[in-house]
Amino acid sequence: MLTREGLLKTPIRHIDFTQHNVVPLVDAMRDMAFSARDLARAADIAERMTRDPECGIILCLAGSLISAGLKKVFADAVRFNMVDAIVSTGANIVDQDFFEALGFRHYVGEEKLRSGMFDAELRELHIDRIYDTLIDEDQLRICDDTVRQIADSLEPRPYSSREFIRAMGEYLQTHGVKSDCSIVYEAYKNDVPIFVPAFSDCSAGFGLVAHQHARGDAPKVTIDSAKDFYELTQLKIQNPVTGLFMVGGGVPKNFAQDIVVAADILGHEVPMHKYAVQVTVADVRDGALSSSTLKEASSWGKVDLAYEQMVYSEATLAVPLLLGYVYHKGAWKGRAARRWNRKLEPVGVA
Amino acid sequence: MLTREGLLKTPIRHIDFTQHNVVPLVDAMRDMAFSARDLARAADIAERMTRDPECGIILCLAGSLISAGLKKVFADAVRFNMVDAIVSTGANIVDQDFFEALGFRHYVGEEKLRSGMFDAELRELHIDRIYDTLIDEDQLRICDDTVRQIADSLEPRPYSSREFIRAMGEYLQTHGVKSDCSIVYEAYKNDVPIFVPAFSDCSAGFGLVAHQHARGDAPKVTIDSAKDFYELTQLKIQNPVTGLFMVGGGVPKNFAQDIVVAADILGHEVPMHKYAVQVTVADVRDGALSSSTLKEASSWGKVDLAYEQMVYSEATLAVPLLLGYVYHKGAWKGRAARRWNRKLEPVGVA
Amino acid sequence: MLTREGLLKTPIRHIDFTQHNVVPLVDAMRDMAFSARDLARAADIAERMTRDPECGIILCLAGSLISAGLKKVFADAVRFNMVDAIVSTGANIVDQDFFEALGFRHYVGEEKLRSGMFDAELRELHIDRIYDTLIDEDQLRICDDTVRQIADSLEPRPYSSREFIRAMGEYLQTHGVKSDCSIVYEAYKNDVPIFVPAFSDCSAGFGLVAHQHARGDAPKVTIDSAKDFYELTQLKIQNPVTGLFMVGGGVPKNFAQDIVVAADILGHEVPMHKYAVQVTVADVRDGALSSSTLKEASSWGKVDLAYEQMVYSEATLAVPLLLGYVYHKGAWKGRAARRWNRKLEPVGVA
Amino acid sequence: MLTREGLLKTPIRHIDFTQHNVVPLVDAMRDMAFSARDLARAADIAERMTRDPECGIILCLAGSLISAGLKKVFADAVRFNMVDAIVSTGANIVDQDFFEALGFRHYVGEEKLRSGMFDAELRELHIDRIYDTLIDEDQLRICDDTVRQIADSLEPRPYSSREFIRAMGEYLQTHGVKSDCSIVYEAYKNDVPIFVPAFSDCSAGFGLVAHQHARGDAPKVTIDSAKDFYELTQLKIQNPVTGLFMVGGGVPKNFAQDIVVAADILGHEVPMHKYAVQVTVADVRDGALSSSTLKEASSWGKVDLAYEQMVYSEATLAVPLLLGYVYHKGAWKGRAARRWNRKLEPVGVA
Repeated sequence: MLTREGLLKTPIRHIDFTQHNVVPLVDAMRDMAFSARDLARAADIAERMTRDPECGIILCLAGSLISAGLKKVFADAVRFNMVDAIVSTGANIVDQDFFEALGFRHYVGEEKLRSGMFDAELRELHIDRIYDTLIDEDQLRICDDTVRQIADSLEPRPYSSREFIRAMGEYLQTHGVKSDCSIVYEAYKNDVPIFVPAFSDCSAGFGLVAHQHARGDAPKVTIDSAKDFYELTQLKIQNPVTGLFMVGGGVPKNFAQDIVVAADILGHEVPMHKYAVQVTVADVRDGALSSSTLKEASSWGKVDLAYEQMVYSEATLAVPLLLGYVYHKGAWKGRAARRWNRKLEPVGVA
Repeated sequence: MLTREGLLKTPIRHIDFTQHNVVPLVDAMRDMAFSARDLARAADIAERMTRDPECGIILCLAGSLISAGLKKVFADAVRFNMVDAIVSTGANIVDQDFFEALGFRHYVGEEKLRSGMFDAELRELHIDRIYDTLIDEDQLRICDDTVRQIADSLEPRPYSSREFIRAMGEYLQTHGVKSDCSIVYEAYKNDVPIFVPAFSDCSAGFGLVAHQHARGDAPKVTIDSAKDFYELTQLKIQNPVTGLFMVGGGVPKNFAQDIVVAADILGHEVPMHKYAVQVTVADVRDGALSSSTLKEASSWGKVDLAYEQMVYSEATLAVPLLLGYVYHKGAWKGRAARRWNRKLEPVGVA
Repeated sequence: MLTREGLLKTPIRHIDFTQHNVVPLVDAMRDMAFSARDLARAADIAERMTRDPECGIILCLAGSLISAGLKKVFADAVRFNMVDAIVSTGANIVDQDFFEALGFRHYVGEEKLRSGMFDAELRELHIDRIYDTLIDEDQLRICDDTVRQIADSLEPRPYSSREFIRAMGEYLQTHGVKSDCSIVYEAYKNDVPIFVPAFSDCSAGFGLVAHQHARGDAPKVTIDSAKDFYELTQLKIQNPVTGLFMVGGGVPKNFAQDIVVAADILGHEVPMHKYAVQVTVADVRDGALSSSTLKEASSWGKVDLAYEQMVYSEATLAVPLLLGYVYHKGAWKGRAARRWNRKLEPVGVA
Repeated sequence: MLTREGLLKTPIRHIDFTQHNVVPLVDAMRDMAFSARDLARAADIAERMTRDPECGIILCLAGSLISAGLKKVFADAVRFNMVDAIVSTGANIVDQDFFEALGFRHYVGEEKLRSGMFDAELRELHIDRIYDTLIDEDQLRICDDTVRQIADSLEPRPYSSREFIRAMGEYLQTHGVKSDCSIVYEAYKNDVPIFVPAFSDCSAGFGLVAHQHARGDAPKVTIDSAKDFYELTQLKIQNPVTGLFMVGGGVPKNFAQDIVVAADILGHEVPMHKYAVQVTVADVRDGALSSSTLKEASSWGKVDLAYEQMVYSEATLAVPLLLGYVYHKGAWKGRAARRWNRKLEPVGVA
């Protein structure tokens, strides 16, 4: 019989790219074929972004990446100044990273659970499943409620998701980070903006709905997704050379690509994203955005053709190799921190 | 040499499920194997939703479905009272459906364009590509600008995307629909709410950014994605028995599933979604939400296990068969229209 | 508890394309996008093959297609003279079609069996599983043994798989076909050759191993796969205009494509395959042959570029639409039967 | 303009797992999720096979693996006694490994060639394309012809593919290996049998067709695929504990799994394959064998459930990690060489 104790036993451990010098391995893949060659070329492009002193780097995250053990990879990318902004789905940032920063963990689920045969039992036990990974639903409710408390504490007005997530970083600063690393907190400390364009579509949504419900007709916090778009576009206008490092597709991919067009609409001619890398297993033949090639994005005037590379791989295999390569090549050591949150405060807050 | 005239010649034609009685074909698939059997079972579940007098039906749309020729399928699903609410990505609703309602069209791209070798040329010609389909970028800019005009015309305050899309339907009512059918307009006439949780992540975003930029510090229209979540949750509370018909995954899938939990957080114990069908080609093994099984969703307490079915197929093949089956079985004839927009007005507008 | 009676209850029913006039449906897909448009174009090419009086049509089969309910589709394609030769994996021809011709059936497996959680139980019950379909292992052993009997009855010498499968058709003629249709038997009656290049990799292999083992050092039946290749190449030389209709990839796809080169090596300059259609879900990015594009095949001088189309779909959905379209367009009515087995007898047997 | 010189410039380089100690990296993946965790578990199982003194290890290869830069990985697996038999598609063994042993190379194709837009030009230049990799067709014809010469030199009778491939190893021994490593040659030296169940479906087929054509009615070399099956089954009977390391699916996967049943048919009760690992990107939902789970194989009595693991990854990424892990763990150092070719000679030749 399944029990909570038996199920929530082995926590997910986050891989640490500083511990694995993958440069020789990735270099050895350069003149192979298929995904290995693509991965090596993508690593080159990612590394080139960090060496380009003019380039602002935007990290896009979709899929359950943090619960899968990639938290430290992205937190370290922020810490080592390899990333200037993040655009993500809500789950990665709130349900998973902020959740762990509150002291909770994700757990390794045994193989048989993937069959789906035990999901009714898991529900009874208040355990949520992400493919092969388990979460304590009761802890997730605490995470939802923490978002509500943060919303309650803010001045009622429309916020970009970036502003709200910055407030979540501040909350961690005040209340303590109960995890050895956190993307939200690392981004807060380094003034790296995090955008979640569909912010109510995650644990934050539950907290915000509770907040708005409690406020009734009184003034309340609202989340203005147009403001997100406006802010990210401002960054593109102020820092025209940009590179995208995308894991998965979905809203973050589309949103970050679109700022080139948005800048144009605001009357600023900016170049397309100069560099673009995407790691995905999505199949191009369904015509969906997640799988659309970066070449296709260039027909839209969004991504330049010179330095773009798709890598066809599940993220847990490819991302440690890619960002580990960039880390160990060391070009980030000379990069100027952009601290874009500071640039946005006049836009976002004042 | 590619020319605009040569490229924008053959418009996409939308399939009309009323013209194809697929019931015998789908019935013949029931005792086959693999996707055929799954499709027949999904058709049964979809049909069962329409026969269940208590069930409110939520249609979720992700991927480039309207540009692919499925507009009339979904517009007719609204017209024939087979759907009570829609949750979608922005592209389907604004860039594609509303765009066509303004009198513009999508175009069949020749096969060689898929290679990506002509994307730089397409950009020069102001033509955007979605895999095998072409769009006149100049017309898309008119669509963006129409959204801006609508925003300019509205009272400055936070809106749910649903409220804004309703205003888009009203715009079509006033200015005329220049297409033989439109989801936005059909939904407007039938009081069917449309939610786009990442509303700024599409043509609407461009219009809203322009609106907000022009307003500067003056009061402006904002898009409150939390309000979307609140409204859809209210519908679940008022109409506890629900079914999901999902095409693709992404934000719409997650958002619609989540309202079960949101209702709980607001203190209302509601049943899980009783019926759920998803058409997708996403692969379960990357652990992402788009591909997560509906069984997995039941561990989260979101989807019931009795009537759920995934169909592994690209949407243009499976959706006409599925919704055509429901149409020709005719159970919608006796369905009471829910006209949920009317229920939401006190929440959303008053 | 699972029982044999409970599991082996609902037989797979084979779809009958003569009963479903899909022409209007496929025509409606022609100006859609993605798989629908590709399918319509593939249907056009498949239909064009049957209208071309010079074209010999080779059907290639990989994947568990017969057990999935497509037996009658392919048997009727032979019966209605829409196909001149078949290249297949062994499972389709021996384990599945010949098996059913012996009076056995495939069975619908309940959904939960796909989880893999019951496979140990199935093994105990002598039931084999193909994803969602079940087979009585004891009946399969009878099929193996029938192959052995046929081998025992033949003059000991090297045979092409085609010769052996023709002997299987003769066996059915003599002993009676215990199924309403059979590819092996229909091909036998119409002198349509069937090639299985990896003939020992299926139920036939078990029968042949038993035969060879019993014979010991005495003369025995052997299966010469080079002879298969030689024979199919002869057909290409004698009938230079050819079209391929491929379901799945694997050995049959490669084998049939290669005869263009083999003819060249034998000193005959023959044209590439003029028409080629493939239905598959394999992903091009792993570089494997099954998923390789038909354009790639043209770099090898195997497939012409003018009339080739990949259709990205699981076979049970796409194949009835494609071959149903060809059937209902009716061009096969005027086709001359090629009766290629008669051409091969001097090569194969004398 | 494309030229042969420009295209055939950068040879594929084969990754060398002895140079990359991936043990810490793979260990760090063990408590992550998705493919990373699966890969670590598969590495454990692969390593366990080499530590089990009773276990004979069968390597199964499908897909264009050698041309992709994995030749040295598999040749070293033979050299370091990590593998006791190989079952493969013909392309890997003949067109790619033997081809390189004759002194030829595969070449890195520029990115734009993948578009398929240049395949007609490539054909004119006698250059064959495998996705992103190029081959000199004229050199491939020399490879075909070398197979013909070997066939001409052999006593006319039915051969298993294993016997023929052993003769190819002998040819390399006599004429010299013009490559720094070769699977065929390494296997020859170490008495490791290589089986190619669809042996005529590759460059060997061209050579054999030419041989048989030249011989006309005179005695000739034939390839008996049933003998392959018989021989591999004998090995299972003599060494009942076995493990499968499978890259891709197709005929090699099915063939190697089937020997458990074949042994039973010959009256020997042998255990199922005790260990099984498969690396693939094939999708389980099309029901085909390549993607069928190893659990499904256990319903057929072929693979044990205790130690089986699928890894969802393109091979060039996963295989160096998996076999590199096994190499650096070092358990192969104590393994007894099985030299199975010596056991088969009485069966195969005498």
